[in-house]
Amino acid sequence: MKLTKEQKQDIEDQQKQQNTTKRVTAPELEKILYEALPVLDHGFIRVVDYMGDDTSIVQSARVSYGKGTKKVSTDSGLIKYLMRHWHSTPFEMCEIKYHVKLPIFIARQWIRHRTANVNEYSARYSILDKEFYLPSNQNLAAQSKNNRQGRGDIIDGEQAKEILNLLKKDAEQTYDNYEKMLNERFDGTTINKNKKGLARELARMNLTLNTYTQWYWKTDLLNLMNFLRLRADSHAQYEIRAYADIMLDTVKKWVPITYEAFMDYRVGGTEVSAKGKIVIQKLIKGEEVKVENSGLSKREWNELMESFDFKEKMI
Amino acid sequence: MKLTKEQKQDIEDQQKQQNTTKRVTAPELEKILYEALPVLDHGFIRVVDYMGDDTSIVQSARVSYGKGTKKVSTDSGLIKYLMRHWHSTPFEMCEIKYHVKLPIFIARQWIRHRTANVNEYSARYSILDKEFYLPSNQNLAAQSKNNRQGRGDIIDGEQAKEILNLLKKDAEQTYDNYEKMLNERFDGTTINKNKKGLARELARMNLTLNTYTQWYWKTDLLNLMNFLRLRADSHAQYEIRAYADIMLDTVKKWVPITYEAFMDYRVGGTEVSAKGKIVIQKLIKGEEVKVENSGLSKREWNELMESFDFKEKMI
Amino acid sequence: MKLTKEQKQDIEDQQKQQNTTKRVTAPELEKILYEALPVLDHGFIRVVDYMGDDTSIVQSARVSYGKGTKKVSTDSGLIKYLMRHWHSTPFEMCEIKYHVKLPIFIARQWIRHRTANVNEYSARYSILDKEFYLPSNQNLAAQSKNNRQGRGDIIDGEQAKEILNLLKKDAEQTYDNYEKMLNERFDGTTINKNKKGLARELARMNLTLNTYTQWYWKTDLLNLMNFLRLRADSHAQYEIRAYADIMLDTVKKWVPITYEAFMDYRVGGTEVSAKGKIVIQKLIKGEEVKVENSGLSKREWNELMESFDFKEKMI
Amino acid sequence: MKLTKEQKQDIEDQQKQQNTTKRVTAPELEKILYEALPVLDHGFIRVVDYMGDDTSIVQSARVSYGKGTKKVSTDSGLIKYLMRHWHSTPFEMCEIKYHVKLPIFIARQWIRHRTANVNEYSARYSILDKEFYLPSNQNLAAQSKNNRQGRGDIIDGEQAKEILNLLKKDAEQTYDNYEKMLNERFDGTTINKNKKGLARELARMNLTLNTYTQWYWKTDLLNLMNFLRLRADSHAQYEIRAYADIMLDTVKKWVPITYEAFMDYRVGGTEVSAKGKIVIQKLIKGEEVKVENSGLSKREWNELMESFDFKEKMI
Repeated sequence: MKLTKEQKQDIEDQQKQQNTTKRVTAPELEKILYEALPVLDHGFIRVVDYMGDDTSIVQSARVSYGKGTKKVSTDSGLIKYLMRHWHSTPFEMCEIKYHVKLPIFIARQWIRHRTANVNEYSARYSILDKEFYLPSNQNLAAQSKNNRQGRGDIIDGEQAKEILNLLKKDAEQTYDNYEKMLNERFDGTTINKNKKGLARELARMNLTLNTYTQWYWKTDLLNLMNFLRLRADSHAQYEIRAYADIMLDTVKKWVPITYEAFMDYRVGGTEVSAKGKIVIQKLIKGEEVKVENSGLSKREWNELMESFDFKEKMI
Repeated sequence: MKLTKEQKQDIEDQQKQQNTTKRVTAPELEKILYEALPVLDHGFIRVVDYMGDDTSIVQSARVSYGKGTKKVSTDSGLIKYLMRHWHSTPFEMCEIKYHVKLPIFIARQWIRHRTANVNEYSARYSILDKEFYLPSNQNLAAQSKNNRQGRGDIIDGEQAKEILNLLKKDAEQTYDNYEKMLNERFDGTTINKNKKGLARELARMNLTLNTYTQWYWKTDLLNLMNFLRLRADSHAQYEIRAYADIMLDTVKKWVPITYEAFMDYRVGGTEVSAKGKIVIQKLIKGEEVKVENSGLSKREWNELMESFDFKEKMI
Repeated sequence: MKLTKEQKQDIEDQQKQQNTTKRVTAPELEKILYEALPVLDHGFIRVVDYMGDDTSIVQSARVSYGKGTKKVSTDSGLIKYLMRHWHSTPFEMCEIKYHVKLPIFIARQWIRHRTANVNEYSARYSILDKEFYLPSNQNLAAQSKNNRQGRGDIIDGEQAKEILNLLKKDAEQTYDNYEKMLNERFDGTTINKNKKGLARELARMNLTLNTYTQWYWKTDLLNLMNFLRLRADSHAQYEIRAYADIMLDTVKKWVPITYEAFMDYRVGGTEVSAKGKIVIQKLIKGEEVKVENSGLSKREWNELMESFDFKEKMI
Repeated sequence: MKLTKEQKQDIEDQQKQQNTTKRVTAPELEKILYEALPVLDHGFIRVVDYMGDDTSIVQSARVSYGKGTKKVSTDSGLIKYLMRHWHSTPFEMCEIKYHVKLPIFIARQWIRHRTANVNEYSARYSILDKEFYLPSNQNLAAQSKNNRQGRGDIIDGEQAKEILNLLKKDAEQTYDNYEKMLNERFDGTTINKNKKGLARELARMNLTLNTYTQWYWKTDLLNLMNFLRLRADSHAQYEIRAYADIMLDTVKKWVPITYEAFMDYRVGGTEVSAKGKIVIQKLIKGEEVKVENSGLSKREWNELMESFDFKEKMI
């Protein structure tokens, strides 16, 4: 991740702000506010604003519960209770805003989370940065054999070199031709005074999907957790997980109590189907259960055993 | 609006907070933060948190516009441009949270705005306050003759007294019976030790719709303006307009530039249909237009003339 | 539930429609289309329109999966897979519309589900029906001792009679005074020609929360299942559960394969936290686990044991 | 637009369906149901399902208005009234589903409309079609001089050829290398048996943004109109307008009364700001107004004059 002098200065200026407020603050999050946290080869995540903290969740839940909540006495107890019982609206009372730089093919996954506010850098107005994502060696994987949408073994040796060369060469060439069609270089210099520049909204179509874009992305804590539950999961594509992992860390700094409950009940937890429950009950009673009489498909059986780490029971 | 000692203390405690933050602040809004601004006879609105200010709109728009925006040079120019051309997403980058006390029949109107976060005081858990809305004399109006959903002339004299008596008596009686069924008074004292109390989730059904409830309500600036455009309008029911008017004032303190653009382009502006445009064009050219050859219905004609204050042309 | 002659005729007329369409149809759902299915004492649910069936889910999932899905060969297998792995968007491709008559205090719970389209009967325009909900004897329950928002023992005998009397009397009286203020009876007759009628938008505030209202409510299958998961649950208030139960049955007629997967993975299933997983693992291995060394609170422990029906392990 | 034999057969099979339903139908829309309507060089739009018609809007509005609507007697009058006064919820009661094939850079614009349901063809599972968008000659335009995000003069002659060559060559080359990295051709044949294939979720990043993708896209009539108002507008990028124009035509076939009101009040209409209203009033009264004393900026003045087709008054 490279930042221009100007960009670095802009960030520093924001970080020097010392405003007084009657609002609640999240001191750990303040420490990294505006900082560009690197992700992948050229991407970053910056927390640029936030609203509320753990106490805001309790505060709004207590309005909705009024005098009735005295029993769940501590904030932590209440937050865990809310998380466990899917009383989700109090978590919507906290809001966070990120500035993210990310490859376009990842942006296309990300945007499928609709309950968020987005402003993307416009390639109709402006020229996109000359930056594109190239996977590092350990992330260059073959198509998985058993998961139609996942990755399998690492590709290395000559084939790895060849692939990275193709990716690099194609990205560079299409970007060069993008500039040629625009008749303008990224730095604003005109290429040929006797030519017109193709409209930016058209020229952009020549860029490859690993080109970096950037956006402001704002959402509430509930929807952020929904995003993270899916995108920080081991089945998510590595490139989006890299962002989700950094974001998980910002959640920890922002709302530490909620973070803990989230890790316990959502990220680290599991779901069991009605049929799966019966299997678990029998196993606990010491009865023998086999996939054939379990009512589960082989696939369901394996997923159930895997979720409880009984690798030896997988078939 | 009455607040208990405890509630007053809670508000004062919040107002005494002096936190340091790197986030942007809205100094005029900070001045009234947490304050209970009275609405109707027992209601209030409190701004309890906010995120962003006018510069946040510009900041996120500039990401989406990148280098291309240099021409619209000032923040104010850009904000006006965005408002005029319905580039609405940058306005979603500011967020505000209110604590509102309001009659249930108004809460039912309000909640129809779905793009917001809400936590309401729960009458399944808690006993509702013994407070109900009674209109003031100047708001006691008859059904309108020409608008099926509006108000017409004021009702006064004996009939007004009679109506206010009925409203007061029925609200008090149903509340008394609510306590009787709960076998518990609002202050928590048991009425009859030998009786059970009806479940709160059932007893509440005996209350009248002018009973006050309260909630935390959080939304972004764009959706707040959508709300205010409809609810601060002269066709809105007076009781919700009373809230919207106070909220408009908080918008002015929060994002003064956006407020001005909103008043000019939305609140004070008007829409003209394709057929209406032809009428206006002819009027400007000095041609005679009559409803018969205008293509407009009588109703449309009158609405068009009214929107340009040509009362004399109304038929 | 009473319907007027006119209403019955309207329903019959709709049911007689015999249109030809190239769209997919759900034959079992067609059989009950438009029918008013009774709920509570005066409420009903009518399915008034729908879009798609089980095959629509598969169809849209296969676009998103393209050629890659051949392996999960049958529709049923794919639908179960989607449900299990929270691939939720294909379930949004089916849509259903209900006409519902329900008490206002239940409507207020229902409306909290925001991802739906709603048109409610307007009490600003029209006079509400003279119908209010009175619980049947077996639903007249006391406040729960151990659940702050639930019901406990049945209230019967003299106290039950007294409560039902109060509810009935108050609803009738406030409705009578509603008519008096309107100076108009429900059937449209004027009460006193020398008096004005109070604006409807004001008079309605005198009604109690058990008054029936009605609305058109439309949502997609995913959001319907989210609604049903919460509202057909045993912790939901009985009065909304009564509606949810009927709706569950319409889902079964509409999309039988999805219904089955929903019952297995969502309704009949359970969630286990990270800490709870360790407890289950130990129990399966035959190790002794006690609440003290489980890392769970007493409450969490009991909820875990209850979800697997180990009542004897509850403390 | 080319369809394979298999695809053509699938469409024909759907079109041969003759189901009986009690639901309302839209006969004109039924005629083109499932048909692939060509857009751009390789794209299409297919209506694959719908719910409701013009009468559905009236039906749900009448619930919300109850007995109060007798005055606006005809369906058409009511629909126009609802449109004019932004009573928008009844338009949400109709739903439509499209299958769309479109270039990725247009898909990225489209997806910004969040209130819709989407299933996109997954390039993590499947190999994308070898089809990419190349503008026709009359759409190859230079960057606009006065609109930072629009198009200006046509580019023709040698430069046009050169640009089209670059676009074609780069798209073909990056697609070839995409197959090479996958070690698999679009038709499923393996390229080199001794090599692994790069994971599809990675290989796709080498494709250019004019590659075609496809999705199922479902939305309600209100949100469809919001989409069309922006995207069928002359300021929208030509390539998305091409889709919007076809969709406008499907709206006409589906809900002809609503279509007419939409064209009159939204598409063909205009908005006037508070300051603009004063200018119009003065012009009608025959008073002289100049930009200097109008309170409008030069830009606002020109936009106002343009919206009323007073080109001669533009400065």
